[in-house]
Amino acid sequence: MTRRDFINATSASYASLLAWGMLHPAPASAFNLPANGQRTDGKGRKVIILGAGLAGMTAAYELGKLGYECTILEARSRSGGRVWTIRGGTKETEIGGGSPQTCSFDNGHYFNGGAARIPHHHQLTLQYCKELNVPLQIFNGANESAYLYNDGGTGDLANRRMRISDYHNDMRGYTAELLSKALDQSTLDQQLTKEDVEKLIDFLKNEGDLNTAHLYKGTNRRGYKIKNDPGAGNLPGTLTDPYGLTDLLRSGFMQPVFYNVGDYAYEQQATLLQPIGGMDAIPKAFEKKLTGKIVFNAPVKELRKTENGVRVIYQKDGKTVEITGEFCVCTLPLPMLKNLESDLSGTVKRAADFIPYMKTGKIGLQFKRRFWEEDDGIYGGITRTNMDINQIWYPSFGLQEAKGVLIGYYNFYSRAEAVGALSITEREKMALALGAKIHPQYPNEFENSFSLAWHRTPYSEGGWANYDDATRKKYYPALLEPDGNIYFAGEHTTYLTAWMAGAFTSARRAVEAIHARVGEYTKK
Amino acid sequence: MTRRDFINATSASYASLLAWGMLHPAPASAFNLPANGQRTDGKGRKVIILGAGLAGMTAAYELGKLGYECTILEARSRSGGRVWTIRGGTKETEIGGGSPQTCSFDNGHYFNGGAARIPHHHQLTLQYCKELNVPLQIFNGANESAYLYNDGGTGDLANRRMRISDYHNDMRGYTAELLSKALDQSTLDQQLTKEDVEKLIDFLKNEGDLNTAHLYKGTNRRGYKIKNDPGAGNLPGTLTDPYGLTDLLRSGFMQPVFYNVGDYAYEQQATLLQPIGGMDAIPKAFEKKLTGKIVFNAPVKELRKTENGVRVIYQKDGKTVEITGEFCVCTLPLPMLKNLESDLSGTVKRAADFIPYMKTGKIGLQFKRRFWEEDDGIYGGITRTNMDINQIWYPSFGLQEAKGVLIGYYNFYSRAEAVGALSITEREKMALALGAKIHPQYPNEFENSFSLAWHRTPYSEGGWANYDDATRKKYYPALLEPDGNIYFAGEHTTYLTAWMAGAFTSARRAVEAIHARVGEYTKK
Repeated sequence: MTRRDFINATSASYASLLAWGMLHPAPASAFNLPANGQRTDGKGRKVIILGAGLAGMTAAYELGKLGYECTILEARSRSGGRVWTIRGGTKETEIGGGSPQTCSFDNGHYFNGGAARIPHHHQLTLQYCKELNVPLQIFNGANESAYLYNDGGTGDLANRRMRISDYHNDMRGYTAELLSKALDQSTLDQQLTKEDVEKLIDFLKNEGDLNTAHLYKGTNRRGYKIKNDPGAGNLPGTLTDPYGLTDLLRSGFMQPVFYNVGDYAYEQQATLLQPIGGMDAIPKAFEKKLTGKIVFNAPVKELRKTENGVRVIYQKDGKTVEITGEFCVCTLPLPMLKNLESDLSGTVKRAADFIPYMKTGKIGLQFKRRFWEEDDGIYGGITRTNMDINQIWYPSFGLQEAKGVLIGYYNFYSRAEAVGALSITEREKMALALGAKIHPQYPNEFENSFSLAWHRTPYSEGGWANYDDATRKKYYPALLEPDGNIYFAGEHTTYLTAWMAGAFTSARRAVEAIHARVGEYTKK
Repeated sequence: MTRRDFINATSASYASLLAWGMLHPAPASAFNLPANGQRTDGKGRKVIILGAGLAGMTAAYELGKLGYECTILEARSRSGGRVWTIRGGTKETEIGGGSPQTCSFDNGHYFNGGAARIPHHHQLTLQYCKELNVPLQIFNGANESAYLYNDGGTGDLANRRMRISDYHNDMRGYTAELLSKALDQSTLDQQLTKEDVEKLIDFLKNEGDLNTAHLYKGTNRRGYKIKNDPGAGNLPGTLTDPYGLTDLLRSGFMQPVFYNVGDYAYEQQATLLQPIGGMDAIPKAFEKKLTGKIVFNAPVKELRKTENGVRVIYQKDGKTVEITGEFCVCTLPLPMLKNLESDLSGTVKRAADFIPYMKTGKIGLQFKRRFWEEDDGIYGGITRTNMDINQIWYPSFGLQEAKGVLIGYYNFYSRAEAVGALSITEREKMALALGAKIHPQYPNEFENSFSLAWHRTPYSEGGWANYDDATRKKYYPALLEPDGNIYFAGEHTTYLTAWMAGAFTSARRAVEAIHARVGEYTKK
């Protein structure tokens, strides 16, 4: 199951669509379309690209290889779009009356506000990291030492934190015991031979760490009560007791918010990767390849079709500037496209109007001390809770340094909407109050924060396109064909929504389509 | 269960001993014994330390803080002992007629020949890394994309590689289906209420990705046959089919060699860590703190008790040198102690004679291309097989670089003995031939290798002390008390055998004992 499946169980997943033959497999090598030869190349042909996010920069980079003259118009003063690493000095003022924020993290500390991990099978993303010399490191996605915390439940295990490893080891133990019992008693109507049943019971004994009577009575896999005996010297640690099966079943940890996503989701199974130093290493590497091609602080105001191509009006230094080109690659997120004055067709405009975007937010919290490492032994990974903070992410870099920034919430939908509606100060207060239920060290160690709500972030106004079957069927197709000489790219034009791989693959698709069309022209 | 449990199921584990109160919990802060005050400190008192491995260097470092004058005698030209990172230029000639080897890895490439990972709960190891400014990174221990390979089996799944994630997802699916069926049919004599049974079935549906009829029919968690359709363009990938339960049960993957150690073993559950740049960053950091205190190339020849302390004879530059001190901390591995001329008591000598050491070996293979990443999407982690190579370790650093070094075998016991008995050339040939069954890219991409057998490595002659209940009971106690003024330290004097944490904790124990004794003296 994909991450998106968990977030929106009704939408068709990338995975299933790949399976149904509706997607191209991601290529894993440099993109080398023929620049010469049978086809005339793109030399001198002008392409205007809207947006210096990954899709726009990839399109400019690849079109540049083919000889096209690209200009990227970028509303922000930075590239990367939703690939945004928050560091000391990062500034933002959200729409809807947000207060200006300036990040005051210490030097070297950061969090990835948007894209934050790369699945090991996103070959295209990995290919661009390689091609652009962006060094990667392991992103510790599934840390068994992180916590689950069910707030407001009624069982014995509610309103207290539990190590994920305790939950996993106990549930593996009890389910192995129950199945082993069913097999022992031959009560199960199944097709296995006696020998195979023996093998299965053997498997269960190891899987659950059952005793010789095939019972689960706890396991040293859960670790030890070392800290319960702080006297040191000869004072011993003691083996922990398992939680009771009934307590576990009533714990609430079987709700989707607590799911074992690191095992369940194809995109989140080990191994995940991240660029060393922050995800913005990727857009920065593209920028180096696009010197002089990106016009920053240049919000687009109008997108017009002309007889021979396109005309774009943008603002720059308080003035209105007009630029013309033969083609346009429009990578604007749909919430931005929706409000753009344009000659776009009705089907495209309706797609922009009706394809919903994910509401989502994060907060980075800088602490004086990496207490999650020092006190809890948590080096990276994710704590999950049903509270409004939803997830706490621990950095899997800068280990054992003096200070640290963790992601104090990563939330979605109504939780993100409610939290995003708060003032910057109130968000911080909320993140600290709820996080302190899991980490009581919060109040003593906290230094400063920076929060963001993607649906309130200028020039994005949403996390990612959030299709369901109906919107995918009704509105999506309009984005796949050029509208005159205007081509669309960005994660919203793919079944890899929310992933950087979507931006990359959509850009290649647009480049391929433009280049093929140029080839057509010259054949005539 | 500990790693050692898997290797030697009969030995008492650190964990269980910790539970029984036979161990101190590892402290997590700097070691600050009182250097002044009630006790007289160690100023001017001479301590001779045998061995500049982690135990010896830690003892010298901590005794130094207290004012003792330490001299470390080290037989090798390097520090670290079994903490040994193999790089270009590393030289070794094994005992028993081994040929001289010089490593020819490219600059920046390496593998850790001995200690290679740090459990997140080995607080003392982490404390020393912090105190000595050794930066850490994630060690990717449990990579679901690595392979299992059962050689020589007869089932349909023998003699072919299988992704660990396929095995896990399928077994989770089938066992969830079987237990769900037992619960549906109420055939199981258990104590759960109807409501709890419903919750458990709900859990199983998610855990196994069962369909609405509670059957496991495969899952997109297994990934997709992307590479089966290499035509790109509109050619689709296809969903993979699950393996059959019977085939899985007969696959041989339920043998211990294939165990899911990343989930089972307390020491190997996520998260594991490693120093950036190689494990020898730790001994190198100690060396900086011990300037002038280590005498290299100084093999010890005699260890004598004197009226006031100890006398040690060692060789240096072809000459015999004698040194005296008030105390000795002997960290020599028992296979070395066994052959030392000494006044040690009979009980200590018998311990050295009869405590067995693990036979174990590794080979580093440098390849032109990181095909395991590029072709297989494997970034770190461990492939497991019942062949003589036993484990293949993929580096979780230097990701996407041009070349790479992987560990082509990591084996134990009779496998290590057989492989260690081969010539350097034959080991390489064997590693390449067996590894190529799993990675057919081996022959085309191979460049060079460096292999080691710890039981044939001079000044170690074994991997680690390998106690069983009998040897622990009979011989171990002799190592815990001083023999005259000679104190013993090293992993073999702990229940943390094989781990660096054992070296650290044993050194602190010896320091504490010496310092306490000095305190006793001055009271008289």
